[in-house]
Amino acid sequence: METGEATSESMERLRRRLLDAAQRIVERAGGVSVTLDITLDMVMKEAGVSRTSLYRAWPRKEEFEVDLLCDLAGPSWQGTAAFDEETILLARNVVAERLELLQTSGGREQLLREIVRRAANQNFSALVASAQWRTYVALTATILSMPDEDRRTRVRDSLQQAEAVFIQHMAVFYEGMSAILGYRLREPDLGFERLAAVGAAVVEGLGLRQLISAATVDAPLILEGPNGPEEWSLAAYGFFGVINQMIEPDPGYDVTTALTDYLKSLAQQEVSSE
Amino acid sequence: METGEATSESMERLRRRLLDAAQRIVERAGGVSVTLDITLDMVMKEAGVSRTSLYRAWPRKEEFEVDLLCDLAGPSWQGTAAFDEETILLARNVVAERLELLQTSGGREQLLREIVRRAANQNFSALVASAQWRTYVALTATILSMPDEDRRTRVRDSLQQAEAVFIQHMAVFYEGMSAILGYRLREPDLGFERLAAVGAAVVEGLGLRQLISAATVDAPLILEGPNGPEEWSLAAYGFFGVINQMIEPDPGYDVTTALTDYLKSLAQQEVSSE
Repeated sequence: METGEATSESMERLRRRLLDAAQRIVERAGGVSVTLDITLDMVMKEAGVSRTSLYRAWPRKEEFEVDLLCDLAGPSWQGTAAFDEETILLARNVVAERLELLQTSGGREQLLREIVRRAANQNFSALVASAQWRTYVALTATILSMPDEDRRTRVRDSLQQAEAVFIQHMAVFYEGMSAILGYRLREPDLGFERLAAVGAAVVEGLGLRQLISAATVDAPLILEGPNGPEEWSLAAYGFFGVINQMIEPDPGYDVTTALTDYLKSLAQQEVSSE
Repeated sequence: METGEATSESMERLRRRLLDAAQRIVERAGGVSVTLDITLDMVMKEAGVSRTSLYRAWPRKEEFEVDLLCDLAGPSWQGTAAFDEETILLARNVVAERLELLQTSGGREQLLREIVRRAANQNFSALVASAQWRTYVALTATILSMPDEDRRTRVRDSLQQAEAVFIQHMAVFYEGMSAILGYRLREPDLGFERLAAVGAAVVEGLGLRQLISAATVDAPLILEGPNGPEEWSLAAYGFFGVINQMIEPDPGYDVTTALTDYLKSLAQQEVSSE
């Protein structure tokens, strides 16, 4: 180390040199980390639980923290974040209200378009409003740089479990919707899981952009639809591209069989969720 | 507060109650925050700068931190993260090596397909290897919950600036590639900026998934191409869907005019970058 650099370098060059050094350190660490701005006192007060009970639950603060991180990462709340029940309900209601469209291939194409337009928009809106989703993303983006190895492994396991549950859930939904609408995968090897992963990627990638450039992402598009102009969100339009790439009309479609299978699968889901 | 809850509740119920309380606190704060695991001593040592000089650059540690966060968020390094020079170069080289394909609409379609297949794959690989990109994502996902308002505003401005530079850069690239390949936007109102935003969303959304579910995202797809089987990454396949949705062959294409314009724009870029 030398002294007096600031006299030979301008202040700006000194700052740049220091910031470059700091960036190298951050990069070697694999990025930034996530912290919980939360104290045990806050949790005790919020839960209405005594300090004695709290220490019985977690003798060390670190243990509480890793359990909380796993909880934030894990499938316990995924039901309300990336996986949005309202989206599923909306899609199913569009089918229920326009059953007559299932009779022709043109009608089915129109129905697919309408479902994508409305459901992807709903899914996007739910996502960007969700602090839980943002937390999930922040944990994912920082998992590689989480300093403690045991903590990193446990949080990553929770993230993986949440992702697997989400993808599985969405894949079942896409497969069922494709069947009732008379579509099938263009590449059977793709699998509905990977369709679900790409579909979620478009919506979540745009969700991230929306946090910093809302004006660009939120401006609606007016597209010419089968019955006149339609308003599309950018997320739905991009998602529609992914869907059109990955599925195609099923030449073996039979409306009665499809409807029977669809009703049976809905009934089955109703029974399983009780 | 009451005492002795742990005797009336099982340990698991007590923990659940406390974790639920902690989740409510995190949610009210708008999510988790990002920290820099970096001390001024580390920076001094890495930069080879004295403590006196460091304090001249930033009298308070908080000021150093916010400058570093802005730097990590900002366009200074975006050149090496989401915007990947190798991707641009690869796409341009595919065009240069297959100029004869520009003569027919079938050839141009084949060229577009080949560029997407290879360039999107390169872009995806560069992204997931980048600690800078992960940091950018982590800052974006946590910006709304950054506690200090002044800091939040400054970091958000840097994120916005980086995003604007990136999108502008990519939009120019997509517009130029579309022109040389004989394509145009299906919806002129969309603009190449929004095409760039959706394209980046697919790649980045899958990049996030790759961090936790590498096996699903990295498994290649074998698709039947114009000259036999081709290996596609999931990112390229999804990106191709977005591209096919948003652009269409330009009926007014003239190969000589397109090539002249393309060569001029490359020459112009060469001059500007000097």
